[in-house]
Amino acid sequence: MDIAPEAIAAAPAGGRHETDVVIVGAGPVGLFAVFQCGMLGMHCHVVDALETVGGQCAALYPEKPIYDIPALPEVSGRHLVDRLVAQAAPFRPVYHLAQQGAVLTEAADGWTLETDAGTRIVAKAVIVAAGVGAFQPRRPPLKGIELFEGGPEGMGVHYAIHDPDAYAGRRVVIAGGGDSAVDWALALAGRATHIYMVHRRDKFRAADAAVAEMHGLAESGKLELVVPYQLKGLDAEGDRLAAVTVADTAGGMRRLNADALLAFFGLSQALGPVAEWAPDLADGRLAVDPATNMTARHGLFAIGDVSHYPGKLKLILTGFAEAASAAHAAHGVVFPRKRLKFEYSTNKGVPDAD
Amino acid sequence: MDIAPEAIAAAPAGGRHETDVVIVGAGPVGLFAVFQCGMLGMHCHVVDALETVGGQCAALYPEKPIYDIPALPEVSGRHLVDRLVAQAAPFRPVYHLAQQGAVLTEAADGWTLETDAGTRIVAKAVIVAAGVGAFQPRRPPLKGIELFEGGPEGMGVHYAIHDPDAYAGRRVVIAGGGDSAVDWALALAGRATHIYMVHRRDKFRAADAAVAEMHGLAESGKLELVVPYQLKGLDAEGDRLAAVTVADTAGGMRRLNADALLAFFGLSQALGPVAEWAPDLADGRLAVDPATNMTARHGLFAIGDVSHYPGKLKLILTGFAEAASAAHAAHGVVFPRKRLKFEYSTNKGVPDAD
Repeated sequence: MDIAPEAIAAAPAGGRHETDVVIVGAGPVGLFAVFQCGMLGMHCHVVDALETVGGQCAALYPEKPIYDIPALPEVSGRHLVDRLVAQAAPFRPVYHLAQQGAVLTEAADGWTLETDAGTRIVAKAVIVAAGVGAFQPRRPPLKGIELFEGGPEGMGVHYAIHDPDAYAGRRVVIAGGGDSAVDWALALAGRATHIYMVHRRDKFRAADAAVAEMHGLAESGKLELVVPYQLKGLDAEGDRLAAVTVADTAGGMRRLNADALLAFFGLSQALGPVAEWAPDLADGRLAVDPATNMTARHGLFAIGDVSHYPGKLKLILTGFAEAASAAHAAHGVVFPRKRLKFEYSTNKGVPDAD
Repeated sequence: MDIAPEAIAAAPAGGRHETDVVIVGAGPVGLFAVFQCGMLGMHCHVVDALETVGGQCAALYPEKPIYDIPALPEVSGRHLVDRLVAQAAPFRPVYHLAQQGAVLTEAADGWTLETDAGTRIVAKAVIVAAGVGAFQPRRPPLKGIELFEGGPEGMGVHYAIHDPDAYAGRRVVIAGGGDSAVDWALALAGRATHIYMVHRRDKFRAADAAVAEMHGLAESGKLELVVPYQLKGLDAEGDRLAAVTVADTAGGMRRLNADALLAFFGLSQALGPVAEWAPDLADGRLAVDPATNMTARHGLFAIGDVSHYPGKLKLILTGFAEAASAAHAAHGVVFPRKRLKFEYSTNKGVPDAD
């Protein structure tokens, strides 16, 4: 199943939105909550820190097979997410990506969620499906690195590439030894003036063909391998990045003149502000009533790995059932005067996805 | 996905078996419990009243699409069951079909389940996944009908056909207006001496092509339509069925001389003995601790539609999560001295189905 990009209606950052339910986290459990809410007549907005939907499945193990999704004897994380997006699509969720839920406040008739990108979403109910937290690129421990972050592409420090052409004519240090580092080195090879490939080992953990291509570029002088070296410091000229200092294991130093540092050290996760929204347990998980998946605050639900109750299993399939439970309970919050009639999907059907 | 019949290892009735977990009910939730137990190193035997696995999905709505199975935006009951059988197959469950769990007794070191076919299964734990009960063919309300049931095929009253050749040379009354009645009429047409097709209406609710073929056989005298008529009584000669009496709406009676009556009036469901195995609620469902899905009896679990706890949703996907919960809790019962290490399927993998 291939999902058309149109299935994911991502809203531009900022602005004010109103909806029935805001879901924090677009991993598998959050996506299935969209479907379950939709089946009960509730519209959803979904916020996620990543630039794409799918959470851990998409970010950490897109190709790894998962075996314990019921009736899917073997499915990759990527395909699982594609299928869940397709299942949610008929209910036209609005996705707010690359932004993190920051401030949650109780309003007169529900909740207001503000993201760190300035988006405000007003909703009757909130379902937190934040997993083990929002993904953040892992930042190398270099003094003053934050001063070079957040600027225009092609200059300063970045953890992702959106516009490869921004690096045309630039001197670039790429740090890291995985697929992202190698793939982007290949992609920038024709564009950047000079590419330094810094890795703490000789060996790269990327696809064999890509690594071979990278070594070919190094031999023909289109890329310079700086291995085994580790990042040590950043030098500025005015407020601009001018050079990256690296060190080998024996302490030998090199200064690489560069306009940009691209650091690909994977992702780390932190629950962030979510942990403060409801009474949480020692390990950051939110305590819920297992009968409803509601926290101690009326209209605030938690499902999936972020929630806890006695006997809780941290399985995706358990999160799916919790999504159904939270959606049924949220119906009473969103439509306090409407009685929920329990129906089976096979009798009720779903809207056309068209 | 087509499931090879070998994937379903059905044991002959009778005999004594030992296993880790006996699962009562081979519907979707029972099938997924086989997988979940298997992932935790527990072997399962599965008992079901139907002659095939799949429960309601297979018996009541094999072709109807289901929309709310996570990551399967639309799946027929039949395909859902096929997929769950395939997922369970690597763990080599043993199926005991066409027999109902009858007597459950606590043994020194677990449980013994006896079926109404005389099979005895000794297990450390029992998971009841009996849905809304065992399926039984719907019996027409004819006085003394039970006296003609249970005999050899070709004679007396039957609700299913296993050996069509047993009807060779016999006079047969087929009652019912659905697919089973029409399909078996076509199958027996070359074999039986005479076929009476009794239905309370002129119209049959079966596939158009099959109905047309049946009318063709009626026109050429190979089958006699007795419509609109209803069954009224059975006449014996000695202890053998001799004739079936039928009546039309005006009260007009006919006596059809016959060796066998085949009644195809669909299935009804009754929880049966299961309701007495554990403290149940007014509506026959078994009360469980939602943290473990265990009943008040140690080692006896209930999952799916047959179980109840506060907030319970009667959804297949909820039953799947309960299967995971019960399997994890059953592990402590089956292996009381082994500590369960929580692992994700993506890291652990599954055995080869080969």
